[in-house]
Amino acid sequence: MRDDVEMLAMPLERVRRYLEPGPIVLVSSAWQGESNIMTLGWHTVMAFSPSLVGCVISSGNHSFELVRRSGQCVINLPTTALIDEVIGIGNSSGAELDKFNHFGLTASQATAVEVPLIEECHAHFECRLVDDSLVDRHDFFIWEVVAARARATPAYPETLHYTGDGVFMVAGEIIDRRGQFLPQML
Amino acid sequence: MRDDVEMLAMPLERVRRYLEPGPIVLVSSAWQGESNIMTLGWHTVMAFSPSLVGCVISSGNHSFELVRRSGQCVINLPTTALIDEVIGIGNSSGAELDKFNHFGLTASQATAVEVPLIEECHAHFECRLVDDSLVDRHDFFIWEVVAARARATPAYPETLHYTGDGVFMVAGEIIDRRGQFLPQML
Repeated sequence: MRDDVEMLAMPLERVRRYLEPGPIVLVSSAWQGESNIMTLGWHTVMAFSPSLVGCVISSGNHSFELVRRSGQCVINLPTTALIDEVIGIGNSSGAELDKFNHFGLTASQATAVEVPLIEECHAHFECRLVDDSLVDRHDFFIWEVVAARARATPAYPETLHYTGDGVFMVAGEIIDRRGQFLPQML
Repeated sequence: MRDDVEMLAMPLERVRRYLEPGPIVLVSSAWQGESNIMTLGWHTVMAFSPSLVGCVISSGNHSFELVRRSGQCVINLPTTALIDEVIGIGNSSGAELDKFNHFGLTASQATAVEVPLIEECHAHFECRLVDDSLVDRHDFFIWEVVAARARATPAYPETLHYTGDGVFMVAGEIIDRRGQFLPQML
Protein backbone atom coordinates (compact mmCIF):
# COMPACT_ATOMS: atom_id res chain seq x y z
CA MET A 1 0.00 0.00 0.00
CA ARG A 2 2.78 2.37 0.99
CA ASP A 3 4.63 3.86 -1.95
CA ASP A 4 7.73 5.95 -2.43
CA VAL A 5 6.29 9.07 -3.99
CA GLU A 6 7.85 12.08 -2.30
CA MET A 7 5.79 14.07 0.22
CA LEU A 8 6.00 17.82 -0.28
CA ALA A 9 5.09 20.55 2.17
CA MET A 10 2.45 22.95 0.84
CA PRO A 11 1.50 26.53 1.66
CA LEU A 12 -1.32 26.32 4.21
CA GLU A 13 -3.80 28.28 2.07
CA ARG A 14 -3.63 25.41 -0.45
CA VAL A 15 -5.36 23.01 1.93
CA ARG A 16 -8.67 23.79 0.15
CA ARG A 17 -7.22 22.15 -2.95
CA TYR A 18 -7.64 18.76 -1.23
CA LEU A 19 -10.48 19.26 1.24
CA GLU A 20 -12.96 21.53 -0.56
CA PRO A 21 -13.92 18.77 -3.06
CA GLY A 22 -15.39 16.91 -0.08
CA PRO A 23 -13.42 13.66 0.31
CA ILE A 24 -13.76 11.14 3.06
CA VAL A 25 -10.82 11.64 5.43
CA LEU A 26 -9.19 9.63 8.18
CA VAL A 27 -8.71 11.64 11.37
CA SER A 28 -5.90 10.40 13.60
CA SER A 29 -5.69 11.41 17.23
CA ALA A 30 -3.70 10.70 20.38
CA TRP A 31 -3.89 11.38 24.11
CA GLN A 32 -1.78 10.05 26.97
CA GLY A 33 -0.26 7.17 25.03
CA GLU A 34 -3.44 6.10 23.27
CA SER A 35 -3.99 6.73 19.57
CA ASN A 36 -6.98 6.24 17.30
CA ILE A 37 -8.29 6.74 13.76
CA MET A 38 -11.80 7.59 12.61
CA THR A 39 -13.42 7.86 9.19
CA LEU A 40 -15.05 11.25 8.66
CA GLY A 41 -17.07 12.91 5.89
CA TRP A 42 -18.52 15.91 7.73
CA HIS A 43 -15.95 18.67 7.29
CA THR A 44 -15.60 22.02 5.58
CA VAL A 45 -12.89 24.52 4.78
CA MET A 46 -13.62 27.71 6.75
CA ALA A 47 -10.80 30.15 5.95
CA PHE A 48 -7.60 30.41 3.90
CA SER A 49 -5.34 32.28 6.31
CA PRO A 50 -5.24 31.19 9.04
CA SER A 51 -6.07 27.87 7.37
CA LEU A 52 -9.23 26.75 9.17
CA VAL A 53 -11.20 23.51 8.79
CA GLY A 54 -14.36 22.67 10.71
CA CYS A 55 -15.56 19.13 11.32
CA VAL A 56 -18.19 17.20 13.22
CA ILE A 57 -16.82 14.48 15.50
CA SER A 58 -19.75 12.96 17.32
CA SER A 59 -19.44 12.57 21.07
CA GLY A 60 -20.35 8.91 20.53
CA ASN A 61 -16.99 8.32 18.81
CA HIS A 62 -14.00 7.09 20.77
CA SER A 63 -11.94 9.81 19.07
CA PHE A 64 -14.09 12.57 20.62
CA GLU A 65 -12.35 12.64 24.01
CA LEU A 66 -8.90 12.18 22.46
CA VAL A 67 -9.18 15.23 20.22
CA ARG A 68 -10.99 17.29 22.84
CA ARG A 69 -8.38 16.66 25.49
CA SER A 70 -5.30 16.94 23.28
CA GLY A 71 -6.65 19.77 21.12
CA GLN A 72 -4.84 18.20 18.19
CA CYS A 73 -5.47 15.86 15.28
CA VAL A 74 -4.18 14.97 11.84
CA ILE A 75 -6.56 14.95 8.89
CA ASN A 76 -5.23 12.25 6.54
CA LEU A 77 -6.44 11.96 2.94
CA PRO A 78 -6.96 8.38 1.72
CA THR A 79 -7.53 7.35 -1.89
CA THR A 80 -9.35 4.38 -3.45
CA ALA A 81 -6.33 2.19 -2.63
CA LEU A 82 -7.43 2.44 1.02
CA ILE A 83 -11.18 1.85 0.60
CA ASP A 84 -11.19 -1.34 2.69
CA GLU A 85 -9.35 0.45 5.50
CA VAL A 86 -11.73 3.45 5.27
CA ILE A 87 -14.72 1.13 5.70
CA GLY A 88 -13.10 -1.04 8.36
CA ILE A 89 -12.06 1.99 10.42
CA GLY A 90 -15.57 3.43 10.16
CA ASN A 91 -17.06 0.11 11.22
CA SER A 92 -14.98 -0.36 14.37
CA SER A 93 -14.32 1.45 17.64
CA GLY A 94 -11.00 2.54 19.06
CA ALA A 95 -12.35 1.44 22.44
CA GLU A 96 -11.91 -2.17 21.32
CA LEU A 97 -9.17 -2.03 18.71
CA ASP A 98 -5.74 -0.51 18.04
CA LYS A 99 -6.66 0.64 14.54
CA PHE A 100 -3.12 1.39 13.29
CA ASN A 101 -2.09 -2.13 14.19
CA HIS A 102 -5.29 -3.92 13.15
CA PHE A 103 -5.45 -2.30 9.71
CA GLY A 104 -1.70 -2.48 9.08
CA LEU A 105 -1.29 1.27 8.78
CA THR A 106 2.02 2.99 9.47
CA ALA A 107 2.00 5.60 12.24
CA SER A 108 4.56 8.28 11.36
CA GLN A 109 5.64 11.26 13.37
CA ALA A 110 3.96 14.55 12.53
CA THR A 111 6.01 17.74 12.40
CA ALA A 112 3.91 20.15 14.47
CA VAL A 113 1.55 18.05 16.63
CA GLU A 114 1.92 15.07 18.96
CA VAL A 115 -0.37 12.87 16.87
CA PRO A 116 0.72 10.09 14.50
CA LEU A 117 -0.12 10.59 10.84
CA ILE A 118 -1.05 7.74 8.51
CA GLU A 119 1.90 7.24 6.20
CA GLU A 120 -0.13 5.46 3.48
CA CYS A 121 -2.39 8.48 2.86
CA HIS A 122 -1.96 10.92 -0.01
CA ALA A 123 -1.86 14.05 2.15
CA HIS A 124 -1.58 15.01 5.83
CA PHE A 125 -2.99 18.10 7.50
CA GLU A 126 -1.73 18.63 11.04
CA CYS A 127 -4.27 20.53 13.10
CA ARG A 128 -4.61 22.42 16.38
CA LEU A 129 -8.00 23.15 17.92
CA VAL A 130 -8.72 26.88 17.78
CA ASP A 131 -12.45 27.10 18.52
CA ASP A 132 -14.42 24.61 20.61
CA SER A 133 -17.42 26.85 21.23
CA LEU A 134 -19.77 24.59 19.25
CA VAL A 135 -18.44 21.27 20.55
CA ASP A 136 -21.02 20.91 23.31
CA ARG A 137 -23.97 21.88 21.15
CA HIS A 138 -23.05 20.45 17.74
CA ASP A 139 -19.90 18.27 18.20
CA PHE A 140 -18.29 20.83 15.88
CA PHE A 141 -14.51 21.39 16.12
CA ILE A 142 -12.73 24.23 14.33
CA TRP A 143 -9.11 23.41 13.56
CA GLU A 144 -6.21 25.46 12.34
CA VAL A 145 -4.02 23.54 9.92
CA VAL A 146 -0.48 24.22 11.10
CA ALA A 147 1.43 21.94 8.70
CA ALA A 148 0.37 20.35 5.42
CA ARG A 149 2.05 17.87 3.10
CA ALA A 150 0.94 15.92 0.03
CA ARG A 151 2.51 13.42 -2.34
CA ALA A 152 4.01 15.03 -5.42
CA THR A 153 1.92 12.77 -7.70
CA PRO A 154 -0.76 12.22 -8.81
CA ALA A 155 -1.81 15.87 -8.97
CA TYR A 156 -5.47 14.85 -8.61
CA PRO A 157 -5.74 11.78 -6.39
CA GLU A 158 -8.65 9.33 -6.65
CA THR A 159 -10.37 10.39 -3.46
CA LEU A 160 -13.50 8.76 -2.01
CA HIS A 161 -16.71 10.76 -1.46
CA TYR A 162 -19.36 9.16 0.70
CA THR A 163 -23.05 9.31 -0.19
CA GLY A 164 -24.39 7.15 2.66
CA ASP A 165 -25.86 3.63 2.33
CA GLY A 166 -22.43 2.09 1.76
CA VAL A 167 -21.96 3.89 -1.55
CA PHE A 168 -18.91 5.97 -2.47
CA MET A 169 -18.40 8.31 -5.39
CA VAL A 170 -14.84 8.33 -6.70
CA ALA A 171 -13.23 11.58 -7.86
CA GLY A 172 -13.59 11.71 -11.65
CA GLU A 173 -12.70 13.92 -14.58
CA ILE A 174 -10.79 17.19 -14.07
CA ILE A 175 -12.09 20.30 -15.84
CA ASP A 176 -9.80 23.35 -16.00
CA ARG A 177 -11.77 26.58 -16.41
CA ARG A 178 -9.12 28.93 -15.07
CA GLY A 179 -9.48 31.21 -18.10
CA GLN A 180 -13.12 31.94 -17.22
CA PHE A 181 -12.39 33.19 -13.70
CA LEU A 182 -11.66 36.69 -12.52
CA PRO A 183 -8.20 36.50 -10.88
CA GLN A 184 -9.55 37.50 -7.46
CA MET A 185 -12.23 34.79 -7.68
CA LEU A 186 -9.94 31.79 -8.17
CA MET B 1 -31.11 23.46 -19.71
CA ARG B 2 -34.35 22.82 -17.91
CA ASP B 3 -35.64 19.32 -18.28
CA ASP B 4 -38.82 17.50 -17.39
CA VAL B 5 -37.50 14.90 -14.99
CA GLU B 6 -39.86 14.73 -12.03
CA MET B 7 -38.79 16.29 -8.72
CA LEU B 8 -39.43 14.06 -5.71
CA ALA B 9 -39.55 15.06 -2.07
CA MET B 10 -37.07 13.18 0.09
CA PRO B 11 -36.87 12.36 3.80
CA LEU B 12 -34.76 15.08 5.40
CA GLU B 13 -32.16 12.69 6.77
CA ARG B 14 -31.27 11.81 3.16
CA VAL B 15 -29.83 15.26 2.51
CA ARG B 16 -26.36 13.84 3.23
CA ARG B 17 -26.75 11.67 0.12
CA TYR B 18 -26.26 14.82 -1.99
CA LEU B 19 -24.20 17.17 0.18
CA GLU B 20 -21.74 14.90 2.00
CA PRO B 21 -19.79 14.15 -1.24
CA GLY B 22 -18.83 17.85 -1.22
CA PRO B 23 -20.31 19.40 -4.38
CA ILE B 24 -20.28 23.05 -5.33
CA VAL B 25 -23.76 24.42 -4.60
CA LEU B 26 -25.71 27.53 -5.57
CA VAL B 27 -27.23 29.30 -2.57
CA SER B 28 -30.27 31.39 -3.39
CA SER B 29 -31.51 34.07 -1.01
CA ALA B 30 -34.08 36.85 -0.79
CA TRP B 31 -34.89 39.80 1.46
CA GLN B 32 -37.41 42.60 1.01
CA GLY B 33 -38.00 42.03 -2.70
CA GLU B 34 -34.37 41.47 -3.62
CA SER B 35 -33.03 38.02 -4.51
CA ASN B 36 -29.54 36.71 -5.17
CA ILE B 37 -27.50 33.60 -5.91
CA MET B 38 -23.99 32.71 -4.82
CA THR B 39 -21.62 29.85 -5.64
CA LEU B 40 -20.44 28.05 -2.52
CA GLY B 41 -18.08 25.17 -1.78
CA TRP B 42 -17.56 25.57 1.99
CA HIS B 43 -20.33 23.52 3.57
CA THR B 44 -20.76 20.40 5.68
CA VAL B 45 -23.54 18.15 6.86
CA MET B 46 -23.79 18.49 10.66
CA ALA B 47 -26.67 16.23 11.75
CA PHE B 48 -29.27 13.84 10.35
CA SER B 49 -32.30 14.74 12.43
CA PRO B 50 -32.90 17.61 12.62
CA SER B 51 -31.21 17.82 9.23
CA LEU B 52 -28.45 20.39 9.79
CA VAL B 53 -25.99 21.86 7.29
CA GLY B 54 -23.30 24.41 8.13
CA CYS B 55 -21.77 26.77 5.60
CA VAL B 56 -19.42 29.73 5.37
CA ILE B 57 -20.88 32.77 3.64
CA SER B 58 -18.28 35.50 3.78
CA SER B 59 -19.44 38.90 4.97
CA GLY B 60 -17.90 40.28 1.77
CA ASN B 61 -20.61 38.55 -0.28
CA HIS B 62 -23.77 40.39 -1.26
CA SER B 63 -25.74 37.33 -0.08
CA PHE B 64 -24.46 37.70 3.49
CA GLU B 65 -26.95 40.38 4.56
CA LEU B 66 -29.83 38.73 2.67
CA VAL B 67 -29.46 35.39 4.45
CA ARG B 68 -28.68 36.98 7.80
CA ARG B 69 -31.73 39.22 7.73
CA SER B 70 -34.18 36.69 6.29
CA GLY B 71 -32.79 33.69 8.18
CA GLN B 72 -33.58 31.61 5.11
CA CYS B 73 -31.91 30.24 1.99
CA VAL B 74 -32.18 27.47 -0.56
CA ILE B 75 -29.18 25.26 -1.26
CA ASN B 76 -29.50 24.28 -4.94
CA LEU B 77 -27.42 21.46 -6.43
CA PRO B 78 -26.09 22.14 -9.95
CA THR B 79 -24.51 19.56 -12.24
CA THR B 80 -21.94 19.85 -15.04
CA ALA B 81 -24.70 21.15 -17.34
CA LEU B 82 -24.58 24.37 -15.30
CA ILE B 83 -20.80 24.83 -15.09
CA ASP B 84 -20.83 28.15 -16.97
CA GLU B 85 -23.54 29.50 -14.67
CA VAL B 86 -21.65 28.25 -11.58
CA ILE B 87 -18.54 30.14 -12.68
CA GLY B 88 -20.42 33.24 -13.83
CA ILE B 89 -22.37 33.47 -10.57
CA GLY B 90 -19.14 33.09 -8.57
CA ASN B 91 -17.49 35.79 -10.66
CA SER B 92 -20.18 38.44 -10.24
CA SER B 93 -21.86 40.35 -7.43
CA GLY B 94 -25.56 40.59 -6.68
CA ALA B 95 -24.93 44.25 -5.86
CA GLU B 96 -24.55 44.88 -9.60
CA LEU B 97 -26.56 42.13 -11.24
CA ASP B 98 -29.91 40.33 -11.05
CA LYS B 99 -28.35 36.89 -11.31
CA PHE B 100 -31.55 34.92 -12.03
CA ASN B 101 -32.22 37.21 -14.98
CA HIS B 102 -28.64 37.61 -16.21
CA PHE B 103 -27.89 33.88 -16.21
CA GLY B 104 -31.30 32.85 -17.56
CA LEU B 105 -32.19 30.77 -14.52
CA THR B 106 -35.78 30.07 -13.52
CA ALA B 107 -36.82 31.28 -10.06
CA SER B 108 -39.45 28.88 -8.72
CA GLN B 109 -41.41 29.08 -5.53
CA ALA B 110 -40.10 27.06 -2.62
CA THR B 111 -42.50 25.15 -0.38
CA ALA B 112 -41.35 26.15 3.11
CA VAL B 113 -39.30 29.35 2.76
CA GLU B 114 -39.77 32.74 1.06
CA VAL B 115 -36.75 32.28 -1.18
CA PRO B 116 -36.80 31.35 -4.88
CA LEU B 117 -35.20 28.05 -5.79
CA ILE B 118 -33.32 27.49 -9.04
CA GLU B 119 -35.49 25.28 -11.19
CA GLU B 120 -32.62 24.04 -13.39
CA CYS B 121 -30.76 22.42 -10.48
CA HIS B 122 -30.84 18.71 -9.68
CA ALA B 123 -31.92 19.11 -6.05
CA HIS B 124 -33.21 21.82 -3.71
CA PHE B 125 -32.74 22.05 0.04
CA GLU B 126 -34.89 24.70 1.69
CA CYS B 127 -33.24 26.00 4.85
CA ARG B 128 -33.98 28.02 7.97
CA LEU B 129 -31.21 29.52 10.07
CA VAL B 130 -31.04 27.76 13.45
CA ASP B 131 -27.68 28.86 14.86
CA ASP B 132 -25.92 32.12 14.06
CA SER B 133 -23.54 32.07 17.01
CA LEU B 134 -20.46 31.77 14.76
CA VAL B 135 -21.57 34.23 12.10
CA ASP B 136 -19.71 37.21 13.58
CA ARG B 137 -16.49 35.31 14.22
CA HIS B 138 -16.35 32.86 11.30
CA ASP B 139 -19.14 33.79 8.83
CA PHE B 140 -20.51 30.35 9.69
CA PHE B 141 -24.27 29.73 9.37
CA ILE B 142 -25.97 26.59 10.65
CA TRP B 143 -29.13 25.76 8.72
CA GLU B 144 -31.92 23.31 9.30
CA VAL B 145 -33.14 21.78 6.06
CA VAL B 146 -36.93 21.95 6.29
CA ALA B 147 -37.83 20.66 2.81
CA ALA B 148 -35.79 18.68 0.29
CA ARG B 149 -36.48 17.58 -3.27
CA ALA B 150 -34.37 15.98 -6.01
CA ARG B 151 -34.93 14.85 -9.57
CA ALA B 152 -35.86 11.19 -9.86
CA THR B 153 -32.96 10.58 -12.29
CA PRO B 154 -30.04 10.26 -12.59
CA ALA B 155 -29.54 8.56 -9.24
CA TYR B 156 -25.97 9.90 -9.06
CA PRO B 157 -25.79 13.32 -10.74
CA GLU B 158 -22.57 14.67 -12.28
CA THR B 159 -21.85 17.20 -9.58
CA LEU B 160 -18.96 19.67 -9.62
CA HIS B 161 -16.32 19.70 -6.86
CA TYR B 162 -14.06 22.73 -6.70
CA THR B 163 -10.32 22.44 -6.05
CA GLY B 164 -9.43 26.14 -6.42
CA ASP B 165 -7.40 27.70 -9.26
CA GLY B 166 -10.33 27.44 -11.67
CA VAL B 167 -10.23 23.63 -11.63
CA PHE B 168 -13.24 21.40 -10.95
CA MET B 169 -13.35 17.68 -10.26
CA VAL B 170 -16.47 15.99 -11.67
CA ALA B 171 -18.22 13.24 -9.72
CA GLY B 172 -16.99 9.93 -11.13
CA GLU B 173 -17.45 6.21 -10.68
CA ILE B 174 -19.88 4.85 -8.07
CA ILE B 175 -18.67 2.04 -5.79
CA ASP B 176 -21.28 0.15 -3.77
CA ARG B 177 -19.78 -1.43 -0.64
CA ARG B 178 -22.99 -1.76 1.33
CA GLY B 179 -22.25 -5.42 2.11
CA GLN B 180 -19.08 -4.45 4.03
CA PHE B 181 -20.82 -2.07 6.43
CA LEU B 182 -22.32 -2.78 9.81
CA PRO B 183 -26.01 -1.80 9.49
CA GLN B 184 -25.70 0.94 12.14
CA MET B 185 -22.68 2.41 10.35
CA LEU B 186 -24.31 3.03 6.95
